[in-house]
Amino acid sequence: MRAARYYGKEDIRIQSIPIQPCGKDQIRIAPAYVGICGTDLHEYLGGPTFAPASPHPLTGDTIPITLGHEFSGIVTEVGDGITTFRKGEHVVIQPSIYCGTCSACKNGVENVCETGGFIGLSGAGGGLSESVVVSERALLKLPDNIPLDVGALVEPLSVAWHAITASPHHPDSTVLVLGGGPIGLAVVQCLVALKTRKVIMSEVSGTRQKFAEEFGAHHILNPKECDVIATSKELSGGGGPDVVFDCAGVPASIKTACQAVKAKGTVVNVAIWEKEVPFQPNMLVFKEAMYTAVLGYQRKDFQAVIDHIADGTLKPSKMITSKIQLDDLVEKGIKALIEDKESHVKILVHVGTNTG
Amino acid sequence: MRAARYYGKEDIRIQSIPIQPCGKDQIRIAPAYVGICGTDLHEYLGGPTFAPASPHPLTGDTIPITLGHEFSGIVTEVGDGITTFRKGEHVVIQPSIYCGTCSACKNGVENVCETGGFIGLSGAGGGLSESVVVSERALLKLPDNIPLDVGALVEPLSVAWHAITASPHHPDSTVLVLGGGPIGLAVVQCLVALKTRKVIMSEVSGTRQKFAEEFGAHHILNPKECDVIATSKELSGGGGPDVVFDCAGVPASIKTACQAVKAKGTVVNVAIWEKEVPFQPNMLVFKEAMYTAVLGYQRKDFQAVIDHIADGTLKPSKMITSKIQLDDLVEKGIKALIEDKESHVKILVHVGTNTG
Ligand SMILES: NC(=O)c1ccc[n+]([C@@H]2O[C@H](COP(=O)([O-])OP(=O)(O)OC[C@H]3O[C@@H](n4cnc5c(N)ncnc54)[C@H](O)[C@@H]3O)[C@@H](O)[C@H]2O)c1
Ligand SMILES: NC(=O)c1ccc[n+]([C@@H]2O[C@H](COP(=O)([O-])OP(=O)(O)OC[C@H]3O[C@@H](n4cnc5c(N)ncnc54)[C@H](O)[C@@H]3O)[C@@H](O)[C@H]2O)c1
Ligand SMILES: [Zn+2]
Ligand SMILES: [Zn+2]
Ligand SMILES: [Zn+2]
Ligand SMILES: [Zn+2]
Repeated sequence: MRAARYYGKEDIRIQSIPIQPCGKDQIRIAPAYVGICGTDLHEYLGGPTFAPASPHPLTGDTIPITLGHEFSGIVTEVGDGITTFRKGEHVVIQPSIYCGTCSACKNGVENVCETGGFIGLSGAGGGLSESVVVSERALLKLPDNIPLDVGALVEPLSVAWHAITASPHHPDSTVLVLGGGPIGLAVVQCLVALKTRKVIMSEVSGTRQKFAEEFGAHHILNPKECDVIATSKELSGGGGPDVVFDCAGVPASIKTACQAVKAKGTVVNVAIWEKEVPFQPNMLVFKEAMYTAVLGYQRKDFQAVIDHIADGTLKPSKMITSKIQLDDLVEKGIKALIEDKESHVKILVHVGTNTG
Repeated sequence: MRAARYYGKEDIRIQSIPIQPCGKDQIRIAPAYVGICGTDLHEYLGGPTFAPASPHPLTGDTIPITLGHEFSGIVTEVGDGITTFRKGEHVVIQPSIYCGTCSACKNGVENVCETGGFIGLSGAGGGLSESVVVSERALLKLPDNIPLDVGALVEPLSVAWHAITASPHHPDSTVLVLGGGPIGLAVVQCLVALKTRKVIMSEVSGTRQKFAEEFGAHHILNPKECDVIATSKELSGGGGPDVVFDCAGVPASIKTACQAVKAKGTVVNVAIWEKEVPFQPNMLVFKEAMYTAVLGYQRKDFQAVIDHIADGTLKPSKMITSKIQLDDLVEKGIKALIEDKESHVKILVHVGTNTG
């Protein structure tokens, strides 16, 4: 079968590889649509980071590995032991890989498993291939009223949903979101779906500000043109936003987040950081604010996102800014994002022949 | 009356000043014992910091101001409107000054009032004087079985109590306390009073390690001799401490705190920081840990500490390492702490003639 294989920095090859057998307790999926995300770009530009340069403790795989961790697909084969899924069903893949035995897993937070990883980044196959074999726990059913392309958006929306569940969110909250990339825009959409009273987006790029507006942000600030701290305090009635999501992950955003948030408020860091940044804990001390951080998602976040798309409270289809074919992954996908990330939210790769 | 007046850096004078009148809704206290704390040292060595160089928004006072914010005393006069306290009663002073109208105050967190301050630091008199006039809300009764000198320890213990209430504390917790100064030792004592299963103290000074042992810490680590992160993980069964209190406030302690804490654990920062420190938020991201910060205390923290001293679960009297007279404040108090801070936990200044 055809697959996008990651060999290392600036080396992704579309190749023919053998298909994996489907075991008794496994399910074979034909991936339909696959989102390309910042992590894929990072691996391409400077990896291997997530991709295993030595055997991954859980998958046993080493690069080259198949890419694609944000995807929907169709069940094409079910192992003898499987009764919950059947051939032809549309599904979304929850790509988390976890050990089940470390102290995080034992405490029910497999998303921070000590040796955890992701299908499509850590081995165990990936969405950017004609076939992938997974266990039952990696699958959620996609209801009939959600098309397969929208199904590929469930993963980034689940990152956002999970981040919101880590905050003391309330419909009456005033919330500031820093950074309007795919993740920040997903946070805005989830906040709007939860009928949050006031959602403020801060983003430097004009194109992304427009996306934020389309997705329902109530106020859009440009940090180059206005004082985000003062303005968000005003917009929240003086005390500052109840919750600030840092989806930018730059030295300026951590300061803005900690300085803007209200007394006893919560900063939720969603960003992954490249290096240390200067930090003055007194920013939090003098108002007893909380700084918390999230990673990935749990199965229940995927289910919540699917339910909210199904009932129409989440309408994420405008996140799809381009659809390409597997053979064009590097040229029209990875490189298009490197050259002009701001014009895009999600580029989806259409794999196989199904049209969903 | 005699009072210790702070004029600025290295300038504290024991002087005669007029006594303040006692209004209708006020209470006059004759301070008995007054603790000297790190904040007083900071003001002496490098201030004015807390002390108001221009009129304080709530007290209206400017330096010189009377020092002393950790104190017990005896009621000597009550205004006509006061029915809850009577002459001769022993009391502890909750020195917080707050506006009552800012968004923090309105949300019930007067300890982070936007213009807040402290009796004995921000004007409005102080414990290091023969008489101080305060409002009813600044006073708590000291039960008969608590001597006045121990009453002066309620304030630092309340900082610790408040810090613990900001954590998801549970008797089964494993807790790591970084820094065994007066505040870290107060945290240890409160944790022990709450019957915490495992209390680990990390402190560099041998003298202070001994204090930690006397106050009931179960394990004492020297960060210069052992790997605090690895050892505290082992002691907590592999995953890391449930809660880490940073009472050291140095670049090494914030890293140790964030790296040691378990997945989904909480770091409570109690320290006040002199400057920015390098910080890598990924330390929290990859285990979804929480970093929170506390300031001061609330009235209920004072009451809890008084109740636990009264019933014998808190036995803090060994914190008192020296008692001096008001005239010796600078030589035997401030300078003794500057020269040999580690041998002391609390130096108390005995004010007036009562022996209580
Ligand atoms: N926690 C998780 O599980 C998880 C999952 C996916 C992505 N992430 C991380 O989330 C972050 C966001 O991801 P993304 O794909 O949206 O990234 P992105 O780079 O596309 O978006 C970041 C946005 O922030 C904006 N920005 C930069 N500086 C700013 C500032 N000072 N104020 C406001 N906006 C500013 C940029 O213009 C950009 O649009 C990244 O750090 C990524 O690694 C985390
Ligand atoms: N949040 C509040 O309301 C509040 C109130 C009072 C004090 N404070 C702050 O709490 C902190 C502690 O106060 P204190 O009076 O106990 O201070 P202190 O300076 O007496 O104690 C700090 C201790 O930390 C130890 N230490 C230094 N580096 C260490 C390391 N790497 N690991 C372990 N221990 C280390 C020192 O040896 C010292 O004993 C200070 O920052 C102070 O400003 C905060
Ligand atoms: Zn992704
Ligand atoms: Zn695990
Ligand atoms: Zn103090
Ligand atoms: Zn106030």
